Amino acid sequence: MLEKLDLSKKVSKEDYNKQMDVLGERLGKAQRMARDAKRPIIIVFEGWRGARRSALINEMMQQMDARGFNVYSSVRLRGVLQEQPFFSAFWKRLPALGHIAVYHRSWYYLKNANEMADKAEDDSKYPVVSFEHINNFEKMLTDDNYLVLKFFLHLSPEQQKKNIAKNAKTLGKAWRDLNPAIDESEDYNKFLPHYEKMLEATDTVNAPWHLIADDDPRSARLEVFTKIADAIEKAVQMPVEPAADKRTAATYDVLSTIDANKELTKEEYKEKLDKYQKKLTQLQIEMFKAQIPVVIGFEGWDAAGKGGAIRRLTAALDPLGFHVHPIAAPNVVEKQFHYQWRFWTRLPQPGTIAIFDRTWYGRVMVERIEGFAKPQEWQRAYDEIKDMEAQWSEHGIAIAKFWLQIDKDEQLRRFNDRQNDPNKQWKITDEDWRNRDKWDAYEAAVNEMLVRTDTSYAPWTVVEGNNKYYVRLKVLKTVIDLFERKLAEKQQ
Amino acid sequence: MLEKLDLSKKVSKEDYNKQMDVLGERLGKAQRMARDAKRPIIIVFEGWRGARRSALINEMMQQMDARGFNVYSSVRLRGVLQEQPFFSAFWKRLPALGHIAVYHRSWYYLKNANEMADKAEDDSKYPVVSFEHINNFEKMLTDDNYLVLKFFLHLSPEQQKKNIAKNAKTLGKAWRDLNPAIDESEDYNKFLPHYEKMLEATDTVNAPWHLIADDDPRSARLEVFTKIADAIEKAVQMPVEPAADKRTAATYDVLSTIDANKELTKEEYKEKLDKYQKKLTQLQIEMFKAQIPVVIGFEGWDAAGKGGAIRRLTAALDPLGFHVHPIAAPNVVEKQFHYQWRFWTRLPQPGTIAIFDRTWYGRVMVERIEGFAKPQEWQRAYDEIKDMEAQWSEHGIAIAKFWLQIDKDEQLRRFNDRQNDPNKQWKITDEDWRNRDKWDAYEAAVNEMLVRTDTSYAPWTVVEGNNKYYVRLKVLKTVIDLFERKLAEKQQ
Repeated sequence: MLEKLDLSKKVSKEDYNKQMDVLGERLGKAQRMARDAKRPIIIVFEGWRGARRSALINEMMQQMDARGFNVYSSVRLRGVLQEQPFFSAFWKRLPALGHIAVYHRSWYYLKNANEMADKAEDDSKYPVVSFEHINNFEKMLTDDNYLVLKFFLHLSPEQQKKNIAKNAKTLGKAWRDLNPAIDESEDYNKFLPHYEKMLEATDTVNAPWHLIADDDPRSARLEVFTKIADAIEKAVQMPVEPAADKRTAATYDVLSTIDANKELTKEEYKEKLDKYQKKLTQLQIEMFKAQIPVVIGFEGWDAAGKGGAIRRLTAALDPLGFHVHPIAAPNVVEKQFHYQWRFWTRLPQPGTIAIFDRTWYGRVMVERIEGFAKPQEWQRAYDEIKDMEAQWSEHGIAIAKFWLQIDKDEQLRRFNDRQNDPNKQWKITDEDWRNRDKWDAYEAAVNEMLVRTDTSYAPWTVVEGNNKYYVRLKVLKTVIDLFERKLAEKQQ
Repeated sequence: MLEKLDLSKKVSKEDYNKQMDVLGERLGKAQRMARDAKRPIIIVFEGWRGARRSALINEMMQQMDARGFNVYSSVRLRGVLQEQPFFSAFWKRLPALGHIAVYHRSWYYLKNANEMADKAEDDSKYPVVSFEHINNFEKMLTDDNYLVLKFFLHLSPEQQKKNIAKNAKTLGKAWRDLNPAIDESEDYNKFLPHYEKMLEATDTVNAPWHLIADDDPRSARLEVFTKIADAIEKAVQMPVEPAADKRTAATYDVLSTIDANKELTKEEYKEKLDKYQKKLTQLQIEMFKAQIPVVIGFEGWDAAGKGGAIRRLTAALDPLGFHVHPIAAPNVVEKQFHYQWRFWTRLPQPGTIAIFDRTWYGRVMVERIEGFAKPQEWQRAYDEIKDMEAQWSEHGIAIAKFWLQIDKDEQLRRFNDRQNDPNKQWKITDEDWRNRDKWDAYEAAVNEMLVRTDTSYAPWTVVEGNNKYYVRLKVLKTVIDLFERKLAEKQQ
């Protein structure tokens, strides 16, 4: 692809200034249009070492309003990436609705740099992400109305040498040392096919690459700025996609095969609870030593006993090594981002446990049923969620997901108990009763979710829930088994 | 203080369970009361190594709702603290309105640990904070209706030895290695006066220490939980402090002595701008190499040219090394915290520059004049802000603060210009006109601010603003001088 570019284009200083007068106004206006239309924008600058990324970005900033405009560099993210899954660093830097995030080198740079490092040093273990995950990440964002603009600044080998020499002279060696980067100048021809492959694999209809001839930086800037203004102006005029229900409804039936009644005496319970909790206390220490992060998600009918099960689980854990994240309707800030944002930004540190009381599966349950997500949104969420969990798992996160199943009659009994006990009344709200009226719709959604998102790396455990003692033990036992399996895998 | 404690208290298991039945309910209820009353709560657990902090916290968690209840440990914060001012790590972990933050060891532990380390290793440079800053931090929070509860778990030397041995046996040596901490067991008597001094210096009326005899952990828990329930129940019933204007108004007059008109030809401007920007580009690199963080704050009348001055400043900077933070009215999330929170959480990384377009001084300007802050709130803010800036400065942050001064006539001219230019209309709002009507009130507030918060470590620079060229050069020159001074200091 790059060889087709005409690197000889040139623009005089006079022409450049004249055009920039107009283009500058257009950029500023485009930013305000995007803000009004609440379109989030991601602009990625990749390309050869020596390309004039910083100067270009600075010129763009002069035209923009600093409110809602952020510049991020990926060069110093490598250490961060080792701690959490590859894309979590970028989720943390995602622009909010109507904001612009500019990436001075991005996930592409990090993938390349990490691949090179892994070849060079055997002991380095920098995470490398697949092109598939990259494409899924960008697709998920553009599906959610993010505008993703990717620029590759191309240089001829001669110009690259000149630029690097000039930088070294102007800024001194120190600046270069402070900006460690892939240095392709030593073997330009070896890197060219590498970049070609990257561009080919990730040039998609929703997030295409813009290849820019950067031998003449004035020509490059005019081209980049024009493309940005064009893209934003077009995007804000695009009609909103109509709500479309494109799929045949799934008619899975998992729940009706479950008998929620399980026998367990209080004596059996007490004895095993004590045994399991002691075991778990030990295992938490080993998981910490092995630096394995853990994500445990709880879903289930209202009053199915999620809170109690979580309490019996955490009673055995050192509070320094776990965090419970209760998930309710997204708050004002969370609504400014993609629905996955609040989960990516709550991932556990190495060796610690993140427990979610309700999870990202709200997308295909409550958001589906209440219409907070359009049909095409919740329908594609199954794939999006699977990709997310796959990335977590590939990073080494141990994942457990529980569905707590109770009968409709059992729920009614518990609702009435809560209503009649002054100490428990705060637990029951009108919303619980409203949700109960939609039992059948939820049942269909849960069935589809349990089938579609049950994977080898993040399987669902359905817990028979009418007997609370049984629930607690099954949760504990499942977590214990998961920890033991992960520790055994790590030792191999 | 500690010697007065009766360490022989004991509670039987039976008594404990009976009392906990009642106390557990009370704790859960107290949490819901605090949530309804929007009272944020901070609970600090300090004390000897071997004290049963984790078990105590876990027991408390069993009684609490996980929503809005967070546990933080300070043991692994030391590395973080080296990068930013001491208290920034705790500002980031501040509870929101109605939430509870539990600190398993806190700023007290870190102060102690860092002092010990500095004595042990000459090359270690862990930051140590003064008792004065600690008291100011807690006072600022309690003044803002935070409830701060501090517990010191006291052990006899015999019991400490027993507990440590028991932990080592149950949890293995590994757990201990994972929890590096001050180990006072080797020289209990040396540490005792050290802790005494700490308790004396920080036992304040607004955030007193609760000394707890922990030789018998059951007795300790009952005491701690009772104190927590008592304190919350009392706090939520406290009447809201009436708005009080306790001070004599200041009648400083700085602004009237300023002649906002300065002569400067376009030729002089262009020549010097180029020279200053080149200089600044070099200095940014040196500041990065020296890892000196920078905070630059801009205040001034509406239309005084803050945006233009910031643009000329940033035009000379590498976008990877600075960040512009536009500060408007606090958003929904920011309103859940103390007013300083959004500034502490935006501090620059080592070697980088944080530019604030409007600042924390909003507290003593717009919040004062519009009544968003009560008289006692903005009146104490001068001291609070000075303490904040002093902490930043002691950490090594270079601070510049600009007030851009224009005449009332000049402002009118600029407002009309904006109103009449279709490309600039978006810059002017009804609010600007409303603020203009309150010119005199703002003038008094600005005068007081410029006098009261002009310190050696964070001085105000008043910029004569009628001539935009002059403004831009004076800002650049002031920043250049600051950078050169800080670099020279560092080299000494």
